[in-house]
Amino acid sequence: MSDVNPGAVTLVEVREAVDVAAGRKQGSLLIRNANVVNVFTNDIARTHVLLAGRLIAGVGEIFAAAEARENIDLEGRHLVPGLIDGHLHIESALVTPAAYAAGVVPRGVTGLVCDPHEIGNVAGLPGIRWLLQNSEELPLDVWVTVPSCVPSTPFETSGALLDLEAIAALLPLPRVVGVAEIMSYPAVIAGDEENLAKALLAERFAKTAEGHAPAVSGRDLQAYLVAGIGSDHEATTLEEGREKLRAGMFLMIREGSVTRNLEALLPLVNPRYGDRIGLVTDDRLPHDLLAEGGVDFLVRKAIAGGADPAYAIRCASFNVARHYRLPRRGAVAPGYLADLAVLEDLADFSVESVYKEGRPVASHGRLTEAISHDAMGAGPVLHTVHLPVLNRDSFRIPANGARMRCIRPIPHQVLTESIIVVPTTRDGEVTTDPDRDLLKLVCVERHGKQGRVAVSLVTGFGLRAGALASTVGHDHHNLLAVGVSDDDLLLACRRLEQLGGGFAAVGNGKVLAELALPIAGLVSDEPLTIVSRKLEVLEQAAANLGNRLPAPFMTLSFLGLAVIPELRLTDRGLVDVLRSELVPGEIT
Amino acid sequence: MSDVNPGAVTLVEVREAVDVAAGRKQGSLLIRNANVVNVFTNDIARTHVLLAGRLIAGVGEIFAAAEARENIDLEGRHLVPGLIDGHLHIESALVTPAAYAAGVVPRGVTGLVCDPHEIGNVAGLPGIRWLLQNSEELPLDVWVTVPSCVPSTPFETSGALLDLEAIAALLPLPRVVGVAEIMSYPAVIAGDEENLAKALLAERFAKTAEGHAPAVSGRDLQAYLVAGIGSDHEATTLEEGREKLRAGMFLMIREGSVTRNLEALLPLVNPRYGDRIGLVTDDRLPHDLLAEGGVDFLVRKAIAGGADPAYAIRCASFNVARHYRLPRRGAVAPGYLADLAVLEDLADFSVESVYKEGRPVASHGRLTEAISHDAMGAGPVLHTVHLPVLNRDSFRIPANGARMRCIRPIPHQVLTESIIVVPTTRDGEVTTDPDRDLLKLVCVERHGKQGRVAVSLVTGFGLRAGALASTVGHDHHNLLAVGVSDDDLLLACRRLEQLGGGFAAVGNGKVLAELALPIAGLVSDEPLTIVSRKLEVLEQAAANLGNRLPAPFMTLSFLGLAVIPELRLTDRGLVDVLRSELVPGEIT
Repeated sequence: MSDVNPGAVTLVEVREAVDVAAGRKQGSLLIRNANVVNVFTNDIARTHVLLAGRLIAGVGEIFAAAEARENIDLEGRHLVPGLIDGHLHIESALVTPAAYAAGVVPRGVTGLVCDPHEIGNVAGLPGIRWLLQNSEELPLDVWVTVPSCVPSTPFETSGALLDLEAIAALLPLPRVVGVAEIMSYPAVIAGDEENLAKALLAERFAKTAEGHAPAVSGRDLQAYLVAGIGSDHEATTLEEGREKLRAGMFLMIREGSVTRNLEALLPLVNPRYGDRIGLVTDDRLPHDLLAEGGVDFLVRKAIAGGADPAYAIRCASFNVARHYRLPRRGAVAPGYLADLAVLEDLADFSVESVYKEGRPVASHGRLTEAISHDAMGAGPVLHTVHLPVLNRDSFRIPANGARMRCIRPIPHQVLTESIIVVPTTRDGEVTTDPDRDLLKLVCVERHGKQGRVAVSLVTGFGLRAGALASTVGHDHHNLLAVGVSDDDLLLACRRLEQLGGGFAAVGNGKVLAELALPIAGLVSDEPLTIVSRKLEVLEQAAANLGNRLPAPFMTLSFLGLAVIPELRLTDRGLVDVLRSELVPGEIT
Repeated sequence: MSDVNPGAVTLVEVREAVDVAAGRKQGSLLIRNANVVNVFTNDIARTHVLLAGRLIAGVGEIFAAAEARENIDLEGRHLVPGLIDGHLHIESALVTPAAYAAGVVPRGVTGLVCDPHEIGNVAGLPGIRWLLQNSEELPLDVWVTVPSCVPSTPFETSGALLDLEAIAALLPLPRVVGVAEIMSYPAVIAGDEENLAKALLAERFAKTAEGHAPAVSGRDLQAYLVAGIGSDHEATTLEEGREKLRAGMFLMIREGSVTRNLEALLPLVNPRYGDRIGLVTDDRLPHDLLAEGGVDFLVRKAIAGGADPAYAIRCASFNVARHYRLPRRGAVAPGYLADLAVLEDLADFSVESVYKEGRPVASHGRLTEAISHDAMGAGPVLHTVHLPVLNRDSFRIPANGARMRCIRPIPHQVLTESIIVVPTTRDGEVTTDPDRDLLKLVCVERHGKQGRVAVSLVTGFGLRAGALASTVGHDHHNLLAVGVSDDDLLLACRRLEQLGGGFAAVGNGKVLAELALPIAGLVSDEPLTIVSRKLEVLEQAAANLGNRLPAPFMTLSFLGLAVIPELRLTDRGLVDVLRSELVPGEIT
């Protein structure tokens, strides 16, 4: 288990930096005439910054003529602390931490707090270990919160279980900063002792317990907070945000790929709220990461929306560092690690160059330091797709009822609707009916356990032929496939098993496009640009098959998410989320 | 060693509080129509607060009709979080933690972070252990920072030594929140490895390293901060305070008995500085504690001076709790411990009643809950005054030089001046000369070690006869005495040895007044009111002997403080603080 604390400073380097600050030794780098964002006072002032190796040795006019091995003059350009994303799931970007770093470090992001919830659900402790190991020695600090919901519900078969003991085993690690979002808010509010114990465990280790309480308010919100949960990133309205802020939550304002809340909550990006506001991405898809960025996108958008620039930067750096108690991070100040971004322009938050612990690591949008990594080194997260024996009969639906439940995803949201349809039948079987946009959705348990297969109806995709399949299937990450033809569904499943996981589009008995995600069936071993391009090809193939939904593979991956209303399919069958129970497809 | 974490909450009580918040059980107390100070948003709003045992279960309009075993209606009176004093030395009040609690809890103070620097210098680890043990089960949380300067200088004999190993042994304790003020700022700035290691030790335990950097600025200040030191409470001017705030220090604004900085720094008690400002007392003498209060006095004075009342309260509660990472403390919010003060009037900060963890503990200026304590239970802190064999010759000064150094305390300050005098001599000996206000100052090592005795001249007291003596003698706490007659000096020393420490005023061969401080020679076992009265009697006796200095015993106790300029006397002799060396009395 990784126990490296990347930011721990040694006596030798502190002593060196003290000598540099006091003028007894020359610094490593003097950055002159920088407009420095001061996160302690929310102001910006032109001054000089002297580095001593990994550390900032001093900030001030007094360093104008300090000696240093290297000198640069920013001529008034802005210097800001490296940004820290306060909450995200790296797996959502479908890439390794190294590839993620290559994407965001040039944008000024030098740290993130990730919840390895997805890989945890597939691979358990070894999955989290893989993430920790594969995020060492990056030009990006990767801090981890321990997934608290593995599995997320009793209505699904996940690849692993993280119980209190497993969480307690991870909490002492130096890069583990807390217990991740406790999503089972109904259980917390109901006083469920296991969930309450998870929050208390964080407290026992003097770490944080993170929250996830969408639309929870009033007495329910107060009950949720009593557990000792310290944050939330699910507020979607200003009123909801204000209530949570006033109740004491560290309010993380989220702008993900799917869920975008910054515009609504922008009035809270206000210096009067001091250290109580954070900016986080939660989930960003490869294309958005490339086109818009990571947490830098939120800073840019907040500034464009009229927020105080210094404070917007503080919300995505110092405030996050304070919340998680990350030592020596999040400020341009003496004794802090020299994680810095030089801006071309403050209003645009356009980044010219980036320093990580004093080293130049990126310039003009590109890493200038090679990342060495061996993402495939960890066996337990490879070969995680173990399907039961499947054949044409696996996806049959006997025609037992006059009416059936059918899942309808709501475009641009994670929500689904449960609708009632009269199925099309033939020879005693329910069949797909592309003319009515009634397709089959299958969920195949892929963790090599009981090998359950569940089948239901779905509408909204509009496929005229073929099938789409994914081993990303929140939160259990079983194989989900939507399709018109049982043969194509079968081919798609078999192809994903061969790939060790991924996405596939299949039509007329052929694989039309695919993206291998061999790491836990969730993550590619290729760079972000390639993953993004393959995803575009996949989406084009889906469109050619008739798909009408935005981001069809993401939509598919959420159809198994049994914690968000209304109707979902897991390997155990249909889940009515509002009633919190398994329900049959047929309505009798 | 005490390892009780008084605020740790149990699963059972959290579950109970969740049930109360959610409305499934009745609360213990409903406080209706309170004007509640919200420390997260710095505003004040009329609402209701529901308690469940030790915890706050909920705050909000929604609780207007909540069920509770008890109900009170504040009719608009203010409800604020119990105050937390961010830095003080309890020993300065000359009383036990229990007696201190009796003094400040009725004033709305429910927590404090103390640096047992004085008792640590006398009794080492057992002294700190005594403090921890004797501050359990009070209606006041006592958190501890580990003294970092025991001894303070190499120019003195202290009773104990706290090295890195001893500090490391204390840091894991749950009530130990950091390493106390690192006063040896010249050593830190000079890169002294032992001092740097002390700061890093705090970081290793994820605790704080506190600062003490009077008038340190510019490159020196930056160097001091590089060590990882997170706070300062020594700023005396607005300019100094601003520089420290901007450099990243948690700026503790101090208003002690001797050093009073609030007026100068009041502009920094401004909501725009969010969580970066704290209010602390540092040292408060018994009389001031009774007449003015503890950290409540700072809140009152800040509000009277025009500060935003909600923010002033926040600076003495939530901000301190955040700085030291005290869980569930410092706010009136769900999940926080119910440490609360009801105000008669916000502008006066006059306290009507106080709740500690949900229990009513004080009302109208008096504790309503008995404090059980056994302050004398710990042997190692009793019988700590062990003088060498003294006689009339012990205090002789041979007349060896035409001119001598003489200490002159500056009234109302801790500073002293070094002046040069031509001594009065007789029979080859330097004698006291009341007409010229030249008295003898003696420092007798009292820890039973080498038994050194040092004697010098002092001016300013104006005694016409007799002697004053104290076993409080910062920071080594050797016996200090000032006097006209060698016989009276001798009597004073002997009397203090009999008492096990304390203060004495002696004249014409008789003890005129005394205060026993049997606990480490620093602390009384009597209540604050009695200690204060005895001190007044002592001061009256000193006045009768001719004393002209304010607070003569405090002044005397600081004459050995070899870390503050200009001239001091320890058991090893005169210390020139600016030159950081021992100097002879005679100038040759």
